[in-house]
Amino acid sequence: MIPSIYPMVPGHEIVGRVTQVGDDVTNFKVGDTAGIGCFVDSCRECPACSAGVEQYCLKGSALTYNGTEMDRTTPTYGGYSKQITVDEKYALKVNASGDLSGIAPLLCAGITTYSPLKRWGAGPGKKVAVAGLGGLGHMGVKIAKAMGADVTVLSTSPSKEADARSLGASGFVNTRDAEAVKAATGSFDILLDTISANHDYNMYLGMVTLNGVMVVVGVPTEPVPLNAFSVIGGNKVLAGSLIGGIPETQEMLDFCAEHGVTSDVEVITPDRIEEAYDRTIKSDVRYRFVVDMKHA
Amino acid sequence: MIPSIYPMVPGHEIVGRVTQVGDDVTNFKVGDTAGIGCFVDSCRECPACSAGVEQYCLKGSALTYNGTEMDRTTPTYGGYSKQITVDEKYALKVNASGDLSGIAPLLCAGITTYSPLKRWGAGPGKKVAVAGLGGLGHMGVKIAKAMGADVTVLSTSPSKEADARSLGASGFVNTRDAEAVKAATGSFDILLDTISANHDYNMYLGMVTLNGVMVVVGVPTEPVPLNAFSVIGGNKVLAGSLIGGIPETQEMLDFCAEHGVTSDVEVITPDRIEEAYDRTIKSDVRYRFVVDMKHA
Repeated sequence: MIPSIYPMVPGHEIVGRVTQVGDDVTNFKVGDTAGIGCFVDSCRECPACSAGVEQYCLKGSALTYNGTEMDRTTPTYGGYSKQITVDEKYALKVNASGDLSGIAPLLCAGITTYSPLKRWGAGPGKKVAVAGLGGLGHMGVKIAKAMGADVTVLSTSPSKEADARSLGASGFVNTRDAEAVKAATGSFDILLDTISANHDYNMYLGMVTLNGVMVVVGVPTEPVPLNAFSVIGGNKVLAGSLIGGIPETQEMLDFCAEHGVTSDVEVITPDRIEEAYDRTIKSDVRYRFVVDMKHA
Repeated sequence: MIPSIYPMVPGHEIVGRVTQVGDDVTNFKVGDTAGIGCFVDSCRECPACSAGVEQYCLKGSALTYNGTEMDRTTPTYGGYSKQITVDEKYALKVNASGDLSGIAPLLCAGITTYSPLKRWGAGPGKKVAVAGLGGLGHMGVKIAKAMGADVTVLSTSPSKEADARSLGASGFVNTRDAEAVKAATGSFDILLDTISANHDYNMYLGMVTLNGVMVVVGVPTEPVPLNAFSVIGGNKVLAGSLIGGIPETQEMLDFCAEHGVTSDVEVITPDRIEEAYDRTIKSDVRYRFVVDMKHA
């Protein structure tokens, strides 16, 4: 866990209008729409930065909030703000007009699901399972569907089946139903695991097909007991993935714009943040709260 | 664990001369040298069998010993025998003359290490670590080296460094030396984990590079506590691999013949099997015992 540093200004799914540009800025002009994701700088020199996967910067990227600039001293403050300043190299271009609220969550939830789905080949002819239908999961369903895959949602909440189908899933497995899980044995080419609660990787790996992959993007609080044979039997892969670099985040935004993919959101004014936080803890949101800072 | 069935005739790394062939046999003739590995039949119909990865047969392949034929009734008996009968589809061609003892272990230890090294791209320019220097590990070192990779051995036994280097490793990490492990952080493109004792996957994943893979072929007796961030941080892969199918086993034998790769063995007569078993339990063998059945 990253320790919390106070005072803290949260928010790393940020979209807004450019109001000022520095003299050397070439990619943005006043009036453009820009996005900022989970980091605002990185060392720019290491193999990860050179490869455009700045989230894996070997020196540690500068997180958008609850972190520091690369000087390791100056605190960073996030998107719960009327304005934010960022180097253009760490800003994304947003090609959208009108309502931007459904675009903001793409900067974290969108790229977190897009990157592993793309890496592991989600597309036509592939069966993708998305485990967990929350902020990440609902983006996973939409993006996998837009990539052309056949999508199934795995959830402990049978009540989510209708939502799963309306988001684009063709199948649903109640993971508390042992028979349903057994029937899904060896079914999925790619299983995108968005669950942050503690859960049994072995059970989910059982639903992955021969040569298939389960990719985890959620971080359970406890280590997960893994049986070696859960990956050995069936030549399987358990992979991890962490958001995405600037080039792939831009690619994701462009992909979502082209396919009309946005997040399902509930827009609130800043005075309702406490209430929204409590409801988020209770999973009572479909699927992201977005704070509209023009009311701040 | 697979339950033991008695009477049992062990042995699934088998090489010998063909003494008889059936009327319909076309690939072998009397006098040829043939090998038999870990399975002697499979369903021949499922997607795994159709893809030539019979070890993952969805109905379960017929293990060479301590199992049954596909009728699920007739016991199978392995290589501790003067003769064995097998369908030619499940026999391998061995192009070798003279001493065959170093070839027998290729049928399990060879293919178990060759298959994942090939799948994950071991070759020139790649840094491969082999964890554990036993029967599997010493084949992993030789094969990865023959593929052109730069090989490092990871072991809890500093005394194995000399052996590791003579087998072809250019590096050695004593995994009980925390400083040495730390110095190896993010070093290896492919980490082949041959350890069957309980051990900490997270520590080994830390030595894997960005986008790298750790592939496990050993089966610890206990589930391994895995921190999700061990794969999420660095976009890493934890994969499994189980022996290999008939086509790839043939490819491995041909590769080893071409590159002069054999197993380091100690050949014994059948009357010394009990002694060899005790020494194997104590890891007192470099690196495989082979029973010469001509003395039986």
